[in-house]
Amino acid sequence: MHASLTPIEGGIGAVPGVKTAAVHAGIREGASAEKLDLALILFDQPQVTVAAITTNEIKAAPLLVSDRRLAAGRTAIRALVANSGCANACTGERGIADAEATTRCAARALAIPAETVIVASTGVIGLPLPMTRIEAGVDAAAKALAPGGAAATRAARAIMTTDLVPKLSAYRFQHDGRSYTVGGIAKGSGMIAPSMATMLAFIATDFPLDARAAQDALALATADSFNMISVDGDMSTNDAVYLFAPHAEGGIASAGLREALERVTHDLAIAMVRDGEGATKLLTATVTESASREQARRIARAIVDSNLVRTALHGGDPNWGRVIAAAGSVGAGMRDGAWSLEINGLPWVAIGGQELLTEAEAHAAISKQSVEITLRLGLGSEQATAWGCDLSPGYIEINAHYRT
Amino acid sequence: MHASLTPIEGGIGAVPGVKTAAVHAGIREGASAEKLDLALILFDQPQVTVAAITTNEIKAAPLLVSDRRLAAGRTAIRALVANSGCANACTGERGIADAEATTRCAARALAIPAETVIVASTGVIGLPLPMTRIEAGVDAAAKALAPGGAAATRAARAIMTTDLVPKLSAYRFQHDGRSYTVGGIAKGSGMIAPSMATMLAFIATDFPLDARAAQDALALATADSFNMISVDGDMSTNDAVYLFAPHAEGGIASAGLREALERVTHDLAIAMVRDGEGATKLLTATVTESASREQARRIARAIVDSNLVRTALHGGDPNWGRVIAAAGSVGAGMRDGAWSLEINGLPWVAIGGQELLTEAEAHAAISKQSVEITLRLGLGSEQATAWGCDLSPGYIEINAHYRT
Repeated sequence: MHASLTPIEGGIGAVPGVKTAAVHAGIREGASAEKLDLALILFDQPQVTVAAITTNEIKAAPLLVSDRRLAAGRTAIRALVANSGCANACTGERGIADAEATTRCAARALAIPAETVIVASTGVIGLPLPMTRIEAGVDAAAKALAPGGAAATRAARAIMTTDLVPKLSAYRFQHDGRSYTVGGIAKGSGMIAPSMATMLAFIATDFPLDARAAQDALALATADSFNMISVDGDMSTNDAVYLFAPHAEGGIASAGLREALERVTHDLAIAMVRDGEGATKLLTATVTESASREQARRIARAIVDSNLVRTALHGGDPNWGRVIAAAGSVGAGMRDGAWSLEINGLPWVAIGGQELLTEAEAHAAISKQSVEITLRLGLGSEQATAWGCDLSPGYIEINAHYRT
Repeated sequence: MHASLTPIEGGIGAVPGVKTAAVHAGIREGASAEKLDLALILFDQPQVTVAAITTNEIKAAPLLVSDRRLAAGRTAIRALVANSGCANACTGERGIADAEATTRCAARALAIPAETVIVASTGVIGLPLPMTRIEAGVDAAAKALAPGGAAATRAARAIMTTDLVPKLSAYRFQHDGRSYTVGGIAKGSGMIAPSMATMLAFIATDFPLDARAAQDALALATADSFNMISVDGDMSTNDAVYLFAPHAEGGIASAGLREALERVTHDLAIAMVRDGEGATKLLTATVTESASREQARRIARAIVDSNLVRTALHGGDPNWGRVIAAAGSVGAGMRDGAWSLEINGLPWVAIGGQELLTEAEAHAAISKQSVEITLRLGLGSEQATAWGCDLSPGYIEINAHYRT
């Protein structure tokens, strides 16, 4: 880590100029009255705002409405309303109208233009937002806004669905003798796939940027973090990562900003995988000696995405053939006779397929809580890492009755 | 079904000129002595033989050796040796030598050239074939060859891994006043994915064909059967479908042959999905009103391949949003606002997202043993169907300790 980079508490609440609040709005019928389900984020100053959103062809209404807001005034964003319990996806014209009404409601409560408010939702697909509750919730949240980590932790809780823990990360870095912060909150859990997932992440910094620099920095950071994790290979209709920064025409990303942003996105991505639905173990798959970065990425993602690798991991079964079968399945250019495998830094399978660990040694290695598999392709010098989790009966239990 | 098409018993054993045998060779350490694990198929006459094999970049040794045999003499094949318990994949030069030795051993036992023997394996990846046992098994099988369904059922059992039931299908059809047969055996269970799966299928007919006609007929039949099923989205190193027929220069496929072959591949594919690892329910996903056949295929496969759709199916949770999210995730051109859904023939979700069934009605529909979901895209007039199964704790139980 860069010498001047310091991890700090508070997530997005650690960023100067950011206030957050969370309330129980009662969005999901039957949910506990303690379940926070609506979060509000307010920026003291207009923010340049950039996004990385789902590539699913079915995009939820909040994504579409936020996209229009950014297209119309990317440098003027002041607030974000996020809710759990209802995805407002597959809700047609009504969904669009409800998302727009949410921005107007926040605008009234905060005395800012509706065009400066964006929205995000997560939860069950196909149900309409309960607008009376949303509006009451937004009003209550507007009165509870506060800076700092305690409020941000509540906001992180409010966007949780099947997540078990709130996810926050923040780093402080130096530039030209001044101290800046990057901080974020996120939710993950299920429907997490390479190329975006059922995930929301809201990240802010007080380092001034122009829109292009912000977009580039976010793209770079998500490519190696949110886009390299998998819980179940399913891709959501609602995924969105938003990065907010004070606007500075021509402001470029410093090395410190880029590194801090990479750390925050990495931390939040790993937190999502660790807290994947039913997850009991963390899998880190690194592909090295690759002909290209993209090849390494595709193969690393295929490994963490394989149900068979994930069940073997769950059972502590050192079934390396499944790793190789997964790696070969995506048409990325694996060459048999050239690859070798390591597990937790130990040579595992040599070029040609010879096992180098005893069954007991391999079983001990794959039975650890955190398992690192390195696949050397023998094709070049590029590399990439993906993160995933085991597939456990808990995943099925959670998802067999999610809606009912 | 065509009037002249008759389902019959016996699988590949129902085809005139085909003999099969199966023995317990003891290929997998610790397996029960009753577990048949080596199958032999002998054809009275040389067969034109065509294949559809895995697209995995890591191909097992038996695939490579069989491929060479077919390239050298596609119209002269006399026998196939298949084993379960060991995939002979990722076994390097030794694996190739072992697969070739297996063909020589069968050649000696059957008094035919080694060049006319092909091989197939399924089981654990990365372990070498126990050649002494393979050779003894081939010798014993050669003495037990018999026509008919009883022997073929034993052969179907010998290629089973985690399959619970043997899979056979045969149909009789008429052409020019003569009766012909198409019959096959197969194994499936896990590592089953669109674009081939951990599956083996051996299909024979006594209808004479040339190589081109046989290849075309097999490609057509697999496109709508084996390539449209999914158990877990994992793609094996060993998948192979072989079609054997008497060779006739210029012999083209009759309508009856094509239809019988489609029925056999369909039956075997559905049998694989019904017997998928841990499967308790059958899911049939049909995509209609598609702009192209390929679009319909991709979206139908995405639905049956989704872990979230499969867990909802397992739990009887009518979570249609997951069906739509899966359909939109593969970049096949879904258009929101144009689609609608049916379940078991009942209108389920209207264009625009309105639910047409009560929660109780939808729950009852998705709780059936066999669930049919129809997604109308509203984009054209093409259609395709894919088959899958639910994701249950049984799948995890089976796969968490497959190797150890």
